[in-house]
Amino acid sequence: MISHEDAKHHAAPMVVLLTDFGLQDGYVGIMKAVMLSICPQALLVDLTHDIEPQNVHQAAYVLLNAWRYLPKGAIVLAVVDPGVGSSRKPIAVQTDHCTLVGPDNGLFSYVLQHSEMQKAVALQNSQYQLPEVSATFHGRDIFSPAAAYLAKGVDIEQLGPPLSRLERLRQPNLRIETNAIHGELIYIDRFGNLISSIGDLTWDSNDMLRLNPAFDPIYEEGMNGLPPFQAEACAVEVGGQCFEPLYLSYVAVPKGKAVPLINSGNKLEIALNQGSAAELLGIKIGEPVTLRIGDEEGREAD
Amino acid sequence: MISHEDAKHHAAPMVVLLTDFGLQDGYVGIMKAVMLSICPQALLVDLTHDIEPQNVHQAAYVLLNAWRYLPKGAIVLAVVDPGVGSSRKPIAVQTDHCTLVGPDNGLFSYVLQHSEMQKAVALQNSQYQLPEVSATFHGRDIFSPAAAYLAKGVDIEQLGPPLSRLERLRQPNLRIETNAIHGELIYIDRFGNLISSIGDLTWDSNDMLRLNPAFDPIYEEGMNGLPPFQAEACAVEVGGQCFEPLYLSYVAVPKGKAVPLINSGNKLEIALNQGSAAELLGIKIGEPVTLRIGDEEGREAD
Amino acid sequence: MISHEDAKHHAAPMVVLLTDFGLQDGYVGIMKAVMLSICPQALLVDLTHDIEPQNVHQAAYVLLNAWRYLPKGAIVLAVVDPGVGSSRKPIAVQTDHCTLVGPDNGLFSYVLQHSEMQKAVALQNSQYQLPEVSATFHGRDIFSPAAAYLAKGVDIEQLGPPLSRLERLRQPNLRIETNAIHGELIYIDRFGNLISSIGDLTWDSNDMLRLNPAFDPIYEEGMNGLPPFQAEACAVEVGGQCFEPLYLSYVAVPKGKAVPLINSGNKLEIALNQGSAAELLGIKIGEPVTLRIGDEEGREAD
Repeated sequence: MISHEDAKHHAAPMVVLLTDFGLQDGYVGIMKAVMLSICPQALLVDLTHDIEPQNVHQAAYVLLNAWRYLPKGAIVLAVVDPGVGSSRKPIAVQTDHCTLVGPDNGLFSYVLQHSEMQKAVALQNSQYQLPEVSATFHGRDIFSPAAAYLAKGVDIEQLGPPLSRLERLRQPNLRIETNAIHGELIYIDRFGNLISSIGDLTWDSNDMLRLNPAFDPIYEEGMNGLPPFQAEACAVEVGGQCFEPLYLSYVAVPKGKAVPLINSGNKLEIALNQGSAAELLGIKIGEPVTLRIGDEEGREAD
Repeated sequence: MISHEDAKHHAAPMVVLLTDFGLQDGYVGIMKAVMLSICPQALLVDLTHDIEPQNVHQAAYVLLNAWRYLPKGAIVLAVVDPGVGSSRKPIAVQTDHCTLVGPDNGLFSYVLQHSEMQKAVALQNSQYQLPEVSATFHGRDIFSPAAAYLAKGVDIEQLGPPLSRLERLRQPNLRIETNAIHGELIYIDRFGNLISSIGDLTWDSNDMLRLNPAFDPIYEEGMNGLPPFQAEACAVEVGGQCFEPLYLSYVAVPKGKAVPLINSGNKLEIALNQGSAAELLGIKIGEPVTLRIGDEEGREAD
Repeated sequence: MISHEDAKHHAAPMVVLLTDFGLQDGYVGIMKAVMLSICPQALLVDLTHDIEPQNVHQAAYVLLNAWRYLPKGAIVLAVVDPGVGSSRKPIAVQTDHCTLVGPDNGLFSYVLQHSEMQKAVALQNSQYQLPEVSATFHGRDIFSPAAAYLAKGVDIEQLGPPLSRLERLRQPNLRIETNAIHGELIYIDRFGNLISSIGDLTWDSNDMLRLNPAFDPIYEEGMNGLPPFQAEACAVEVGGQCFEPLYLSYVAVPKGKAVPLINSGNKLEIALNQGSAAELLGIKIGEPVTLRIGDEEGREAD
């Protein structure tokens, strides 16, 4: 089933792991032992195992933030699976960039907005599962073997019948007006940085900010009307407070001060220089965030 | 000392790590650097480093839950070692499945009930230790070099003199009656799932539950008398509460409800669908757990 | 740029990672994916990612405690970088033991007191950076590529122009008198062990303790006057309490008792046998620590 050519092509394939299993109980180590038993040459890379238990949205965002940096052909093994043992399908999805393995619960839906889906299958072929499949640990019994066999060069179509429709998560709020983008807080990282759904903002060569619709297709229509704008003319409203302007980096403000900026994932973020914005501001996931772009006076002043 | 044949056999041997060192201080990284300096081709897999400091029972259980999934010939390096610097022996134990390296404090005793011990040695040969051995970090100075030399193909008998008797941990309570199995709570995982000592329960092809004595030899004698039984006729008593019946998976009950089931390690577990049973029920390790199998009415009703 | 000879020499080079990124957000996984995309044969070893956010001193100490155990030629990738986006330079430093990659903020200054610095460069050559360099995640965009290209065999001088002077951290207090060494508490580990700046203490073959100035050059002058001394004649003063004498290992005192000893990094440490000294004593980083060596009566009694 694996031709010599395939085997060569698949030398040291990367398998990137993301789960909510934590590291204390050994569940991830068991998955790795299962994979390396099947495909000893696989290169295992942990993305994270500290997703909040059962928080599929959080997992989907971490994956969205990472996938561009994975080498072409990487296999993503993602298990955040509140529905394990239910009728939700175990799946594998091949895109133009990498192959995704996990439960069909929307976990991959943010990434799939940015990649071309080529094939999707339900992981039903028991030949590529452990001999005994439990009802509570598909990460070990179904997903790890599937990822390892893919790493070994098995064709995705061997793993089970094709699927045409996958589950999708609710999109984070994101709405564009002439002088404002409205979104919501979608993620808080270890540093307490508050990351919003307002994305795809990049600096152009004239030090102007631009929205790049091709980059982040979750914007509603109409956004193409927004011309490049100046960071100095921006203000960020969140939790009843207003921060302005947009800065380039954390150190642009004194230590302990809030600093709205475009982060390394091209999203609008509210941070604190050398501190935790989450702790200081007490803001939670889901909180509305608005980016005001200039104001009438500001625009006139330009 | 390593024949060509052995060296080939030992290409990319797996070393599985389990400690209570945590990940913050770099102690595990130092151990890995020591091992890879000795045996660069070793495949290092973390089982866990978040065992509660000095909790040998917890470590022994995590290892018990994992060892079946390790590839044959794997080396387990386990360091939970309250007695470091005392007269407790550093040991290596070869079984029919894998080789165990760590302190002789019972850490391996649960696994050794399930495997055939072939050889055991005290790690006394200073040739296979770091040049300077501290009194407080045998993980770095004795255990990591031993594991790495084993991975490199050194015979276990080179590491030190044979041992005939190893330390053993107290067994968790487990007692069988005609219509009940009495055990205790032995582990709480990251999800707050409560895992009991009542183990080796498997579903047979008729959807009946069976005890498999060969699988879990810690049951006392007499258990063979227990015939297969129905999950619907079972109830679980723990912490003054009663849960029934046994389910197949977490999602068999509504979100937030308690769900007793046979877990992926074949043990009786009390979980909460998408929540923490430990938090809700406030039950601690050591709490008695009873599995009632049917009752007289129930049995008559069959 | 990579000769055949170099490439052979650099087979499976070790890259050791230390950051304050934590493991929850996937930032470390992204860095690993970037490195393995550039140099798939690199052997990645995590030292720690749980440095307290922006705590450069803590990171410098963890590195100091580990570096001796890294194989010669290892590459250390350390990112604790409160000044990311400021004018602080991204650097690579080649020593006689390993190569250090990270921000020029003193992170490497403890290690550099123990190694011979051979070359240092500013990481300015964009050829060895990601195509787009953000202002907030140089770990991904500058440091990981630099480490990976070094692992691949690129000469350090290719990465940017030479630097002659690097930033240095404040040294921990350390002062020697005839009968005492005065230092401060510099680190608290996962076990609650309190580690002081009083270092380079080793046992000689006569069971006497010695200071080895060559080993720890941070001592001020004059220390060579201190002759070998007996552990039994020592007392440790910290936080208004006094502990005596010095012991060899944790188990030398009953469970739960404080035990001052020379730790596996040759530093004076106050620990608790099977407990947390930090919790019991409530002492914080920076607290003065004094090691009294004998007393007049004691010395007379010898």
